[in-house]
Amino acid sequence: MKTSATFYHAGCPVCLEAESAVVNYLDRAKVDLEIVHLGTAKARVAEAEKAGVKSVPALVIGGQVLHLNFGADLAVLK
Amino acid sequence: MKTSATFYHAGCPVCLEAESAVVNYLDRAKVDLEIVHLGTAKARVAEAEKAGVKSVPALVIGGQVLHLNFGADLAVLK
Repeated sequence: MKTSATFYHAGCPVCLEAESAVVNYLDRAKVDLEIVHLGTAKARVAEAEKAGVKSVPALVIGGQVLHLNFGADLAVLK
Repeated sequence: MKTSATFYHAGCPVCLEAESAVVNYLDRAKVDLEIVHLGTAKARVAEAEKAGVKSVPALVIGGQVLHLNFGADLAVLK
């Protein structure tokens, strides 16, 4: 079974850089990746927060949160 | 040709968590991964700094630096 992963971002330059690394180098044979733009999908900010996301860009993978550099605080996106 | 990646850490709990995600989910068909413990390989702190690493854990991949959460400032490891 594949591991679920969600990459949360807000379209910021730092986000886009991190997204390209995630999209290019994550092992898609093992991981089902969903990419969520919290600037346009505001309804999902609460879900990200519940998963432990404090800032974007962040990758939630197998329940683990990895904040990838720092683009914007999650609070800004509410 | 594979992309070179170096995961720098310092053995901290945050580092070990990030390491497990990197080791498990990075696409090893595309990426040659080296793992460097800067607590024991102090001679490589300068190399990490030059690559743009500010804190550990961090993954330098294809010349791009991704700080994965925050374990320790690089300055502490000098």
